[in-house]
Amino acid sequence: MKAYNNEINKGDFVLLYLNKKRKFLVKAEEKRFGTDKGIIDLGEIIGKKYGIHIKSHLGYEFIVTKPNIIEIIYNAFKRKTQVLYPKDVGYIILTSGVGPGSRVVEAGAGSGFLTAILAYYVRPNGHVYSYEIREDLIELVKENLSNIGLLEYVTLKHKDITKGIDESDVDAIILDMSMPWKVVRHAYSALKNGGVFVAFLPTINQVERTVEKLRESNFIEINAIEIFLRNYKVAKGETRPETLMIAHTGYIVHAKKP
Amino acid sequence: MKAYNNEINKGDFVLLYLNKKRKFLVKAEEKRFGTDKGIIDLGEIIGKKYGIHIKSHLGYEFIVTKPNIIEIIYNAFKRKTQVLYPKDVGYIILTSGVGPGSRVVEAGAGSGFLTAILAYYVRPNGHVYSYEIREDLIELVKENLSNIGLLEYVTLKHKDITKGIDESDVDAIILDMSMPWKVVRHAYSALKNGGVFVAFLPTINQVERTVEKLRESNFIEINAIEIFLRNYKVAKGETRPETLMIAHTGYIVHAKKP
Amino acid sequence: MKAYNNEINKGDFVLLYLNKKRKFLVKAEEKRFGTDKGIIDLGEIIGKKYGIHIKSHLGYEFIVTKPNIIEIIYNAFKRKTQVLYPKDVGYIILTSGVGPGSRVVEAGAGSGFLTAILAYYVRPNGHVYSYEIREDLIELVKENLSNIGLLEYVTLKHKDITKGIDESDVDAIILDMSMPWKVVRHAYSALKNGGVFVAFLPTINQVERTVEKLRESNFIEINAIEIFLRNYKVAKGETRPETLMIAHTGYIVHAKKP
Amino acid sequence: MKAYNNEINKGDFVLLYLNKKRKFLVKAEEKRFGTDKGIIDLGEIIGKKYGIHIKSHLGYEFIVTKPNIIEIIYNAFKRKTQVLYPKDVGYIILTSGVGPGSRVVEAGAGSGFLTAILAYYVRPNGHVYSYEIREDLIELVKENLSNIGLLEYVTLKHKDITKGIDESDVDAIILDMSMPWKVVRHAYSALKNGGVFVAFLPTINQVERTVEKLRESNFIEINAIEIFLRNYKVAKGETRPETLMIAHTGYIVHAKKP
Repeated sequence: MKAYNNEINKGDFVLLYLNKKRKFLVKAEEKRFGTDKGIIDLGEIIGKKYGIHIKSHLGYEFIVTKPNIIEIIYNAFKRKTQVLYPKDVGYIILTSGVGPGSRVVEAGAGSGFLTAILAYYVRPNGHVYSYEIREDLIELVKENLSNIGLLEYVTLKHKDITKGIDESDVDAIILDMSMPWKVVRHAYSALKNGGVFVAFLPTINQVERTVEKLRESNFIEINAIEIFLRNYKVAKGETRPETLMIAHTGYIVHAKKP
Repeated sequence: MKAYNNEINKGDFVLLYLNKKRKFLVKAEEKRFGTDKGIIDLGEIIGKKYGIHIKSHLGYEFIVTKPNIIEIIYNAFKRKTQVLYPKDVGYIILTSGVGPGSRVVEAGAGSGFLTAILAYYVRPNGHVYSYEIREDLIELVKENLSNIGLLEYVTLKHKDITKGIDESDVDAIILDMSMPWKVVRHAYSALKNGGVFVAFLPTINQVERTVEKLRESNFIEINAIEIFLRNYKVAKGETRPETLMIAHTGYIVHAKKP
Repeated sequence: MKAYNNEINKGDFVLLYLNKKRKFLVKAEEKRFGTDKGIIDLGEIIGKKYGIHIKSHLGYEFIVTKPNIIEIIYNAFKRKTQVLYPKDVGYIILTSGVGPGSRVVEAGAGSGFLTAILAYYVRPNGHVYSYEIREDLIELVKENLSNIGLLEYVTLKHKDITKGIDESDVDAIILDMSMPWKVVRHAYSALKNGGVFVAFLPTINQVERTVEKLRESNFIEINAIEIFLRNYKVAKGETRPETLMIAHTGYIVHAKKP
Repeated sequence: MKAYNNEINKGDFVLLYLNKKRKFLVKAEEKRFGTDKGIIDLGEIIGKKYGIHIKSHLGYEFIVTKPNIIEIIYNAFKRKTQVLYPKDVGYIILTSGVGPGSRVVEAGAGSGFLTAILAYYVRPNGHVYSYEIREDLIELVKENLSNIGLLEYVTLKHKDITKGIDESDVDAIILDMSMPWKVVRHAYSALKNGGVFVAFLPTINQVERTVEKLRESNFIEINAIEIFLRNYKVAKGETRPETLMIAHTGYIVHAKKP
């Protein structure tokens, strides 16, 4: 493990933090960065230590913090598509057993957001095989992954996963696409024994179709769940949940090849 | 990465699956294993392929499946304490950015359940420093971790974390203990810039005290949340959520060192 | 309004309360009543004041309290069927505008539980028309309603509501049955302008079919919702939600005749 | 009960409905009413039947529907304060047993929204006693109640309920105010045996203080709960919960005088 370095290097991603609603992921470069609270001279922070404060030209003090990989992925990706929420991704990663060394097939890459997280977790000796039918999205994913140094752990495939999966003996297959039931039979062939099938689905009707197909195809431990996350406003003597909440992102269907 | 091996070796953990309510994690050994659906001769499966069926002496057919690491950890640990649910652990792991190479401090090891999951994710070049005041639990954790080959990624420390943290520049500090506010100042010193503090807490009063202390101690991005998981009964034309649900495990408090 | 009477009369329903888990609805009669905490001589309480304590033969002190109508209905009914939860009934009553003077059609009476609540709220000058195809249930409902003095506000009809509704210009139609879509057209004819259709449904598939039919039939303000209730364990400094919760009773579909 | 009248009379409240997001409660009067979809001549509908369509000057067709009392209360009240949601009000009304003939004490009237609903349910022979310390709000409540014909069922009192309750032997006391613990002892005196105390509270800390005080004051069956309502988007083959949801309105604390 490389020694921890407290110094801001040119090219590092840094997170400028003013308050919960104003935080900006930028690269430390000789550049000016504009916010609604004034312009910040990013060149000034190169060579300084993380944790320093930097003033915008309007006098607002931002803290320069070091983002972790998940923050980088959530903030740095150029998006053309919706992204999965941490509550769902965390659960999917954990319950599918994806970790260092895992080989994972994924489809519905979108901007590569989930691809990146999978790549981060399978490092240094696992691999992600990502299927995508839209060529423009493949280019976007490549750029996004390369930008954060994770491209080497991913094979991007311009292929329709409903037509078949090239890999075999994979640990997990994770699908964020509209008709995952079309992939169920291919998934069964591609998974190793004990391997996990996961689909993320916005509607309950998709859940029904996917589960039916999984049952027909001899998968076991088929589960359909959904996850909620509730935020709290914490203040001494005045603690209460936040008024608004995201009440639905999607359902998660899990199954295992026996 | 070692080639995928489809054969059941002596000493392997295997999962015997009859149905959702009857699945048993056992080791493939020359031994008989008793269930309420009859006795199974485990010696018989050694050398066979994963996916085979094995009959109990009462004629019930169990499928012999390969468990993933998370299933092993959830089923193999000798427990003296409650364990965290996947919905909470997945979220904690992801949002704290813990992954291959991370250095993590943890307290409230209990039976080592969370320690094992952290160890699994920081492999092969990260490390977990686990603080525990009860000597009997340390022995239990050691046995549990050793049993699944994860002990080398963990340093078990017989120390009271409220008295101080020996490590520095760590990526994350994860606490499953009753008075995490007593660790906040030590955590601030031990974390690297951008490092994450996480506490898992059963009562809202603990959340209030922890958040207050984090604010006083200059942490930023302080969040308190809770996660629900809802199971579905899926059947063509008769799909509905399960009647009962675990409505509360605990709150999760997050914060970041700037 | 009759003067409030604090005295326990022969024949009154009373609630014997020991703790949250041990409360019994009984009639004040010359009778002995057995509980797992000893036998209670009910004759003793006649003529006494509400709020007195009475000892079982094992020495446990029960408080003799006056139940309200909803407690009586929830506890006194001989049940052959499941009952709706207060969280759902309260919402249905309120949003359908059912109150004193309302004329309501109801089907799926079961043991008459919902019938009784509707009868309570439409008093003294409204009326409930209850359709039921099972003759044995009609007898049960009659007995249950008569037992609590609400029978005069209800007309029990041994008829299949999917074949037609005899009433017209009714304020609300409330259905707790498996195929409410078969009632939608009849409901449209029977409701007055602005009248409300409500169906309580366990599965999401029933919701889909009912909503489709309502749309085809020119209903407006069609809503499908579900309601959760979460209990808290409150204790100074140790407040938290209860661990277990009823996560699903059913969905409620609402619509209005324009 | 007066015969059902299908005709729109001068002075009636009517609900103009274009779609879920555009519905307007107005009085049928010789007046023009402006909407973002054009101006409507309300005089035109007098003497017509409910259910007719009326065109705005921009050609949009509104349906003229008959509102029920709850819709009128939710839409007609001039508000200076937040109102309780139907999910909470329905539950409070039902579980407190408030119905025709009940005598109810209430505080925290705000604009009289809850007062009006209570008045609607206690008709024709019950009564609501409403305490309010702000004189301007009393005037507003009076106007609001009078506007919908419910003033005769309510006594508005310009008094501080924390100083005492004048009534006795009441069926229920319902509080929507910030410090209900100051009313607990007075409530105990004012309630009849079996009478119900209810408080609606935004923060968990208020719940703790209120429950403690109820315990000290010999109340029984003390419960603290919260209610969620989830909306669904229903469409054949594409059914899913709405993305956003109100995740918190307040907690409800219930207790009973033995």
